[in-house]
Amino acid sequence: MSKQKTANSPSISSILRIAGDIDAFAALTDGGKGVTRLAYSRLERAAHEHFANEMTALGLDVTTDAAGNTIAELRPTEQGDLPAIGTGSHLDSVPEGGRFDGIAGVVAAMEVARQVVRDAIPRQRPWRFVVFAAEEGARFGQACNGSRMIAGSTTSRETYELVDDSGTSMAEAMRLVGLRPDDIESARWEAKDWFAFLELHIEQGAVLESRGISIGAVDAISGSTRFSVTVLGQASHTGGTPMHLRRDALVTAAACVTACDALARDPQHHGTRITVGRLTVHPGSITTIPGKVEFTVDIRDVDSQRQRRTAEALGEVFGRIAEEGSTSLVVAVMGDTSPVVLPEWVTRHVIAAANELGLGFLVLPSGASHDSQQVNRIAPTGMIFVPSRHGLSHVPEEFTTSEQIACGTDVLLRAMMRLDGAR
Amino acid sequence: MSKQKTANSPSISSILRIAGDIDAFAALTDGGKGVTRLAYSRLERAAHEHFANEMTALGLDVTTDAAGNTIAELRPTEQGDLPAIGTGSHLDSVPEGGRFDGIAGVVAAMEVARQVVRDAIPRQRPWRFVVFAAEEGARFGQACNGSRMIAGSTTSRETYELVDDSGTSMAEAMRLVGLRPDDIESARWEAKDWFAFLELHIEQGAVLESRGISIGAVDAISGSTRFSVTVLGQASHTGGTPMHLRRDALVTAAACVTACDALARDPQHHGTRITVGRLTVHPGSITTIPGKVEFTVDIRDVDSQRQRRTAEALGEVFGRIAEEGSTSLVVAVMGDTSPVVLPEWVTRHVIAAANELGLGFLVLPSGASHDSQQVNRIAPTGMIFVPSRHGLSHVPEEFTTSEQIACGTDVLLRAMMRLDGAR
Repeated sequence: MSKQKTANSPSISSILRIAGDIDAFAALTDGGKGVTRLAYSRLERAAHEHFANEMTALGLDVTTDAAGNTIAELRPTEQGDLPAIGTGSHLDSVPEGGRFDGIAGVVAAMEVARQVVRDAIPRQRPWRFVVFAAEEGARFGQACNGSRMIAGSTTSRETYELVDDSGTSMAEAMRLVGLRPDDIESARWEAKDWFAFLELHIEQGAVLESRGISIGAVDAISGSTRFSVTVLGQASHTGGTPMHLRRDALVTAAACVTACDALARDPQHHGTRITVGRLTVHPGSITTIPGKVEFTVDIRDVDSQRQRRTAEALGEVFGRIAEEGSTSLVVAVMGDTSPVVLPEWVTRHVIAAANELGLGFLVLPSGASHDSQQVNRIAPTGMIFVPSRHGLSHVPEEFTTSEQIACGTDVLLRAMMRLDGAR
Repeated sequence: MSKQKTANSPSISSILRIAGDIDAFAALTDGGKGVTRLAYSRLERAAHEHFANEMTALGLDVTTDAAGNTIAELRPTEQGDLPAIGTGSHLDSVPEGGRFDGIAGVVAAMEVARQVVRDAIPRQRPWRFVVFAAEEGARFGQACNGSRMIAGSTTSRETYELVDDSGTSMAEAMRLVGLRPDDIESARWEAKDWFAFLELHIEQGAVLESRGISIGAVDAISGSTRFSVTVLGQASHTGGTPMHLRRDALVTAAACVTACDALARDPQHHGTRITVGRLTVHPGSITTIPGKVEFTVDIRDVDSQRQRRTAEALGEVFGRIAEEGSTSLVVAVMGDTSPVVLPEWVTRHVIAAANELGLGFLVLPSGASHDSQQVNRIAPTGMIFVPSRHGLSHVPEEFTTSEQIACGTDVLLRAMMRLDGAR
């Protein structure tokens, strides 16, 4: 912050407010390294309340829907009945995640609201500032839960089917924090109420950083197919059981992990990413052959057909591997979201805003899923990326400077002003 | 038990007492499936106390040494100062293990003591009935802890170095149950006090069952080398991180698991068994590339040189795999025990006892480690195996009938009587 500012750099006070907001949310964590603030936990609700209190203090009307999404509205300054524009992101995290994933977009929305109110920026449309609930799929397998509910992509019934590691259903978790899983249909948004939506988010990749560019304009968002795999073998003594009589569930699972990596690195699959992020071994004793292994597979792609073909191909490969290892295997789909191409006309407003501010930008796809994928089903949506240091995300080392977020926030405000005036 | 007994079958009352003893020990478990009674836990001590109470009631002198081994002695019925004979096994278990591993040998010892006292069998030598502490390596990595201490194979210092998953050192665990880790040197046995030792144990393999033979006379016990491996990669978002920039610790670990299995199945390694029984993934989230994986490797062999060559070869293979995956890897030796050839003259008494009883026997090696490996450093030792159903062990399904244990007990008693009279 010691360097000379050009006219269009973010103000020091804006950078400091953003840093303060990031710190305030980071303090709401369940211990361990980094930030742990899981989907539909009390801590996630506490973060939503902090947002709601700030917005109420600014004079906005704040509501929380049955799904736990928090929406703060600023009424238009001009007469009329035009559909709204909006911005926002999420406040939940993966276990031992970072301080910026989702939070950066919420903090940017808060800062836009402050500047609009402070500068009395004239508005033809309602401006809505939204925090979506339960975006991370880490707890219940399915991602973007709050935004899926506003988009009508899911039903009350699914909240009873999705279960976390401790056996708690999403419905139960929602009820424990005062939400209404049986009433989530009431949270649905109507297309006629919306003109456009923008989400600012950290890139979670290293493209912007490696090119020294501060703004990403996202043209497409990867889809993801996730499944859980249970391998059943036969536990027995590691000393007493000769190799040829073994049915080792971990030997099967290890070959499946290798197959996932190999398939994603196959040149035919350029752009597909496959990850086994969770794997647990039972009984997990040094001197017992593993009798059961459970693992998850996360497939990401910007090509919808290839994403589903990959999932099918892996299912077949896993089956053959289990047969060779005299084990058996069950695959269960945990979640499936199609890739989305974002509407070009919204992205053009983001690019124009960056140009007005003299900021370099790059049009790029998003590897991660985002609430924007769901919101775009109702409201034409654009995304603004800010750089991630070393491309790291979902880890305590996740980092973006407050100045980088402030630059993104300036683009966000400028793009919203453009959208407010657009027809 | 409805079938006709021949003269040399075990008595119904003996079978029933054995069944009762097995049930009594099985009741001492920490919940979950099967039996969980870990090394140096309160439950293990409770099992030792049950044994001590039974032996005291029979009129034996019972002592517990600094290492937690419980020794019940029956004095000779004849004048003299001959060295002792002994029998025994252990009462701890792996997590979610079975009701018979170790326990069968203790129950057999208890039944021998009862019969010797009841029938006032004349004895030239002291007869000692021993329960060794902490035989299973599942908690602290190192196996046969109590017997290592009586054999002088370890030092007080090592009890401070061995640590369980929760960070508790063996010394601390011992102290929590009233034992004296700083004084384990006092538990050492002297060769001059001992003539011979026998251990009855379940086979933990399927050789006896598949051949329909009730008694195994063990000629050699496999050694084991165990190490723990930590793979360090870089955790990051599964969507944002392209395949070619990944440093996935689980992809490296999976290739290591495959390499272990392949090496043990190599015809050059006939008789080597290699197992990865424990593997944990950090942070263990569906949407985060694994940044760290820890796993254990257990190598068993009856050939000492091949056992060590295998350990070295794996270390090199792991290093290459890590390099290819852009990860790093640390290997730490957890335990190392040489294979042991048991003295033939002791085994000959076991065989003669089986012959006297008209029971079929088979001479075979033990794939698992046993306290006998350590005891044999002080007292010439033999082992009697009884069948394991389907060869399963270290699992809740572990099973041997009370009649099979009673047959083994008859062989044990007869062999001890032979050893008592031998010079």
